[in-house]
Amino acid sequence: MIKANNPELKSWVVVPENSDFPIQNIPFGMFSTQTSKPRAATAIGDQVLDLASLHAAGLFEGIDLPAKVFEQSTLNDFMALGKATARKVRDRISELLAEGNTELSAYTALCESAFHQMAAVEMHMPVRVPNYTDFYSSEQHAFNVGTMFRGPENALMPNWKHIPVGYHGRASSIVVSGTPFHRPKGQTKADDADSPSFGPCRLLDFELEMAYITCKENDLGRAVSTKEAEDYIFGFVILNDWSARDIQKWEYVPLGPFLAKNFASHVSPWIVTMDALMPFTVAGPEQDPEVLPYLSYEEDTHFDVNLEVGIVPDGSDEQTVSNSNFKHMYWNVRQQLAHHTVNGCNMQVGDMYGSGTISGPEESAYGSMLELSWRGTKPILMKDGSERKFIQDGDTVIMRGHAERNGVRIGFGEVKAKVLPAK
Amino acid sequence: MIKANNPELKSWVVVPENSDFPIQNIPFGMFSTQTSKPRAATAIGDQVLDLASLHAAGLFEGIDLPAKVFEQSTLNDFMALGKATARKVRDRISELLAEGNTELSAYTALCESAFHQMAAVEMHMPVRVPNYTDFYSSEQHAFNVGTMFRGPENALMPNWKHIPVGYHGRASSIVVSGTPFHRPKGQTKADDADSPSFGPCRLLDFELEMAYITCKENDLGRAVSTKEAEDYIFGFVILNDWSARDIQKWEYVPLGPFLAKNFASHVSPWIVTMDALMPFTVAGPEQDPEVLPYLSYEEDTHFDVNLEVGIVPDGSDEQTVSNSNFKHMYWNVRQQLAHHTVNGCNMQVGDMYGSGTISGPEESAYGSMLELSWRGTKPILMKDGSERKFIQDGDTVIMRGHAERNGVRIGFGEVKAKVLPAK
Repeated sequence: MIKANNPELKSWVVVPENSDFPIQNIPFGMFSTQTSKPRAATAIGDQVLDLASLHAAGLFEGIDLPAKVFEQSTLNDFMALGKATARKVRDRISELLAEGNTELSAYTALCESAFHQMAAVEMHMPVRVPNYTDFYSSEQHAFNVGTMFRGPENALMPNWKHIPVGYHGRASSIVVSGTPFHRPKGQTKADDADSPSFGPCRLLDFELEMAYITCKENDLGRAVSTKEAEDYIFGFVILNDWSARDIQKWEYVPLGPFLAKNFASHVSPWIVTMDALMPFTVAGPEQDPEVLPYLSYEEDTHFDVNLEVGIVPDGSDEQTVSNSNFKHMYWNVRQQLAHHTVNGCNMQVGDMYGSGTISGPEESAYGSMLELSWRGTKPILMKDGSERKFIQDGDTVIMRGHAERNGVRIGFGEVKAKVLPAK
Repeated sequence: MIKANNPELKSWVVVPENSDFPIQNIPFGMFSTQTSKPRAATAIGDQVLDLASLHAAGLFEGIDLPAKVFEQSTLNDFMALGKATARKVRDRISELLAEGNTELSAYTALCESAFHQMAAVEMHMPVRVPNYTDFYSSEQHAFNVGTMFRGPENALMPNWKHIPVGYHGRASSIVVSGTPFHRPKGQTKADDADSPSFGPCRLLDFELEMAYITCKENDLGRAVSTKEAEDYIFGFVILNDWSARDIQKWEYVPLGPFLAKNFASHVSPWIVTMDALMPFTVAGPEQDPEVLPYLSYEEDTHFDVNLEVGIVPDGSDEQTVSNSNFKHMYWNVRQQLAHHTVNGCNMQVGDMYGSGTISGPEESAYGSMLELSWRGTKPILMKDGSERKFIQDGDTVIMRGHAERNGVRIGFGEVKAKVLPAK
């Protein structure tokens, strides 16, 4: 077992009940205060702990870390050191925060400057994303969308159970939780119209996804096996892959979604390491038909992570609209990475790989408004009495996720964004 | 007129007849020698001129350039200074190289160290590519491919004349001319097979494209108009967008091409500036139906650039297989950029935007083997007597391009790559 994952560990830092950030989590993120530039941090309870200060104070002595590695504008340089190094850093942070350890707790000046209330800091994109790929790996989601367009008999495309279908997305417009954005404008065409028209998207939707971030490069031409994939996957964030359904419908044939997706995608600010999630793996679904050998795998790498989506209409309270789980994936992350590289495609440090919308078997576990409102035929009631088929201006969409087992709860915090009217 | 474009200019550097790099070109690229790290350069005749040395010698005095801007690993920092600065640099290089100017020519030590034979240096990727988008903007190409799959009556999709259709591609696998690569492996499914099989791609193809590179950022949420687009477009390269047709056929529904494209895309090493190409604009085709207002434009921004593709079978001589022209575009670069940003998508410095395969109206002007051999039904004869339906192991594919008017020829050099057998 990884030391830092020990469920018996307790911290001398106060961790509120049901916190996403107990001592067993130790995620990585980038924060700034009103007086500091962005720097790397971990989270513990309601606090952010500045890793650059700890490093400067010599508390990572013995780990091979460049001097300014926590003072870069993103975590890319740190992640590029590899998972073995990140594991040492996580174990060392765990040690420093553990009940009984006084190396940090007795260092009053450092404690005063290195801990910040989470509510008082600004979080930034944890990584620079060189490449972004979005998969389509939840069977229920693919089935739901396919059923709407082609009926349940032909819902899944012939390739779907053979290939972890995916496509390239836009890296530049991936932004951190809280970043303001406007309803996109674009071309749409009504079924009964002769020609398209231009204006604000009318069918704005969220997509509930998880995304993993890579920390290792393979040379162009070298495939990565399902077994090796673990070395490449640093950790996970929650991803809201905003989608303009009406723009998508008109543009996506034959080359796939484009402007329907690339106006903004929000991610949660803390990268929860794959290491921290390993105690929460579950078996994946039986895959029938049998997959080709390069997609077969041995270790279970589905994760039991509870996911929820809430909508807060402007001036009202939050209404939970979806309770899903990351385990509802047909294809796991090892298979996705092995498939992506089997033709020699090269991964880079900081790349983001989305799961695709995660829908569970129950209607309440669907991961998009398209499915939850079944194309707008089943409006969803909000706390203020209004109804939603899709997302309206002024709505804030919040996604949260956490895993829980053996009394340990590992969470992701939240990804949150408010829709401003079209410009 | 831009000073450096003056067709009357001559250089004191010997420029061979039909060179791609007369004094009117002044492209930008990255090179290294056996003893130097990559640095920025321009090309003149058969020579590479080291811009870092010129800058260190004070020859760009009066232009606001950071000290080490030509000693970075790519041109991104230089391009980010904007087109006004790049124009000053290009004009100044033109001045230094012009007949009669002795500031550089009399500086023997500098001349000896700053000029290198092009044949003796290694060229590198000119930019780090944060985002890569590929359009599909040649009507003949879309018509050809559509005809093969759906017949000539339904060849163009209903959206094609309303939208400059495009999709996101993979940035990591864009490599410079000459970079070795292997035939990709992947899943394919024969029409009469029950299930897919895995192995080397059998229908490897090139796609003849041009790509533009951006040098300016728009904020997320801010659209760029067709008029403003010129400020964002730094210059052009030739792009070979390798395609695995059999992999593409099985994977691309419903989210578009993925592993069929992202194993490698080769670009020519010199960025020919948009400024240098402005004397070679031509009117675009009449667009019918009329485009939506955000896609209308005033200035002609189609470019008359002759393009050719040659295949060199291993141990044989080059056979020209295509003569096309960049002017064969339905959608121009201003329209592409305006469309891409109309939903608020943000451009970054170094982004690459491919034209899509450029096919002209004659069969000899088709830009891919898929079209040239019409799905393999019309094999093409090579110099050694062998035939090609698609590209074979050991084949080298070479693409070249140049514009010519008023006695001035502006060229791109070449993009060249040899297909190694699958690993």
